[in-house]
Amino acid sequence: MALSAGVAGASAAGLTSCGKGDDEPSASGANMRTYGERAPQEKTQRVIRELSASPGTGSSRTPLQDLYGIITPSALHYERHHAGVPAIDPAKHSLLVHGLVDKPLIFTMDDIRRFPATSRITFLECGGNVVGEQRGIFPETVQGSHGLLSGSQWTGVPLGLILREAGLKPEAKWMLAEGADACRMARSIPIEKALDPEVLVAYGQNGEALRPENGYPLRLIIPGWEGNTNVKWLHRLHLTAEPAMSAKETAYYTEIRPDGKAEIFTFVMEARSVITRPSGGQKLTSQGFHEIVGLAWTGRGKIRQVEVSVDNGKTWAEAELQEPVLSKALTAFRFPWRWNGEEVVIQCRCTDETGYLQPTREELIAVRGLNSGYHYNGLRPWRVKATGEVVSA
Amino acid sequence: MALSAGVAGASAAGLTSCGKGDDEPSASGANMRTYGERAPQEKTQRVIRELSASPGTGSSRTPLQDLYGIITPSALHYERHHAGVPAIDPAKHSLLVHGLVDKPLIFTMDDIRRFPATSRITFLECGGNVVGEQRGIFPETVQGSHGLLSGSQWTGVPLGLILREAGLKPEAKWMLAEGADACRMARSIPIEKALDPEVLVAYGQNGEALRPENGYPLRLIIPGWEGNTNVKWLHRLHLTAEPAMSAKETAYYTEIRPDGKAEIFTFVMEARSVITRPSGGQKLTSQGFHEIVGLAWTGRGKIRQVEVSVDNGKTWAEAELQEPVLSKALTAFRFPWRWNGEEVVIQCRCTDETGYLQPTREELIAVRGLNSGYHYNGLRPWRVKATGEVVSA
Repeated sequence: MALSAGVAGASAAGLTSCGKGDDEPSASGANMRTYGERAPQEKTQRVIRELSASPGTGSSRTPLQDLYGIITPSALHYERHHAGVPAIDPAKHSLLVHGLVDKPLIFTMDDIRRFPATSRITFLECGGNVVGEQRGIFPETVQGSHGLLSGSQWTGVPLGLILREAGLKPEAKWMLAEGADACRMARSIPIEKALDPEVLVAYGQNGEALRPENGYPLRLIIPGWEGNTNVKWLHRLHLTAEPAMSAKETAYYTEIRPDGKAEIFTFVMEARSVITRPSGGQKLTSQGFHEIVGLAWTGRGKIRQVEVSVDNGKTWAEAELQEPVLSKALTAFRFPWRWNGEEVVIQCRCTDETGYLQPTREELIAVRGLNSGYHYNGLRPWRVKATGEVVSA
Repeated sequence: MALSAGVAGASAAGLTSCGKGDDEPSASGANMRTYGERAPQEKTQRVIRELSASPGTGSSRTPLQDLYGIITPSALHYERHHAGVPAIDPAKHSLLVHGLVDKPLIFTMDDIRRFPATSRITFLECGGNVVGEQRGIFPETVQGSHGLLSGSQWTGVPLGLILREAGLKPEAKWMLAEGADACRMARSIPIEKALDPEVLVAYGQNGEALRPENGYPLRLIIPGWEGNTNVKWLHRLHLTAEPAMSAKETAYYTEIRPDGKAEIFTFVMEARSVITRPSGGQKLTSQGFHEIVGLAWTGRGKIRQVEVSVDNGKTWAEAELQEPVLSKALTAFRFPWRWNGEEVVIQCRCTDETGYLQPTREELIAVRGLNSGYHYNGLRPWRVKATGEVVSA
């Protein structure tokens, strides 16, 4: 391997007792802390994009190019808010279940914590992630293109247990889940999905309480479904016979087809993959061995295979998947590569356990046209220039 | 189920448009942040115990009673330092590999990141966790008894790749791993273990860089082995024919047997389990349904089974294991329980995939006596009093 590690020129004998360098202390270090923080040298951060003059209305993107594995640090989980992050006191927060139920109920947070709980590692992705690429807008970094994507371990109560406590009437076919943010962001969920044991009313994220920007103290988690159905700051479940046709399921989060009609209730996030290193904005500083790493995920179960091409799409070879490969979770992959210093396009594609193969942009546009962009899941090539610079291809 | 949720007394009709409560905003909330923080209401924290007048010498314990799932937030990962937390500049940090090698090498952090990387979810536990219980000292909370235990997703380079780059001489049978803290904490690792593909030179923890108190920028991860072999602030690997007999493997981290001789190099953390909720210091506020939850883990592979007793140890019933059940990782379990309001002792025990059953304290003492305490893995009963208060049993 062409590592740049230098052979220690001097005999190592003089270093056997201690390899002390400039940065290595000879006095005791800092004290312990009750709640830790990252090292001051670490600067990776979410990139914020405000979409309105109202504070907190917009998105912040996860720095996928800097992260490892399948769990996103909660501090770097992507955000997408429609009316900012409300400050909710969990001691006063409650969840109302009403509508077509036998007995309307209000649950406090203490009530909810009395139910049996379950934990699940899953990805969460905004339905608008990669939205521009269908129309030919290619951000220069993976944070810009795919950063509305994160992975967490969520903990909470299966929603079905709460609904059964209230008792569903036979005519209850839909459930409106509403958040306590100022805009009362709300989505209609078909009752069969609401009763899926995978669906959680979650209060835990990565071992501790939800973060404020992730719905503290309570949110819906629907593994594999578009982000905004995973309603944050959840305070109301309204059981109904028909969908509510809320703003966020009619005016937004729908896909305009080539014939001008809109697809609505397109819930499932289909298989996607992207190379995170090397990716746009990074630079290879030497020829020789580089590991290509990235993420694959699908709302339909497990990732079965990831393939990588390092020759402008002419040939593809299988990447190694990092265990554990979990259903509806981020799956990390890696691929050993020897760069010969020539300009080349690298890219990846994935197949999920249903046999679905991630499409090229051309294949996707042939079906969906150019009117829309939600749920875009085309391939994402990166160009490695002879200088080592990596740019959008 | 005897939930305390109140049926909404009034007709829910007045609430259909909005279940707005005192805490629910009607104006836009806070803005997005580049790096998030937990909610101000969340106060759970590590409990610090200083063991020396030198700053940072001692331990801080993970609040297991408050956490969810198998990943511990990095901010709450346990600490055990022998000379505080050094402030290391990763741009100046290096790893020296020398001794019985073909060519001594020094690797910068950039060099190390050029190697193929792997991620692994694993537990980490201090060899001195639960140390007092062998001698009859029973802390009142699970944080006090078992809090030198955490679970993380670690990312780094298989150590064997780095050792093979230097080339091992045939007579290299041990490897001293030394940290860059002021005391140069060091442990000797048998070469067969150093070459185990599971063993990582890690720079990532839970998706981002290691935290300072977890060895930033580089530490050893030896899944299933006692915490202090997972050397933090790793800066030197010395290949030798014999173990170094360092202070931390002779004067400490050894077990005095009943005959007065010491067991040394007792690396593997054997199977343990503990109920984290309800546990000491908590209080049940009502009879009826409660979910008993806890953790099990073993340095010998996967947890096969956890059993729970809710009748003072007379009978045992199988608990449900939360997927994923991963080798040498924390495994969460849960057990549904209906409390009838009488005083009772609850406890758990686990069996790992080797068939090893976690012993009672009496069984353990019959073999190991009372001289020591490292690696104590006896059962941990909790007494639920008729008042609902939970105390050490």
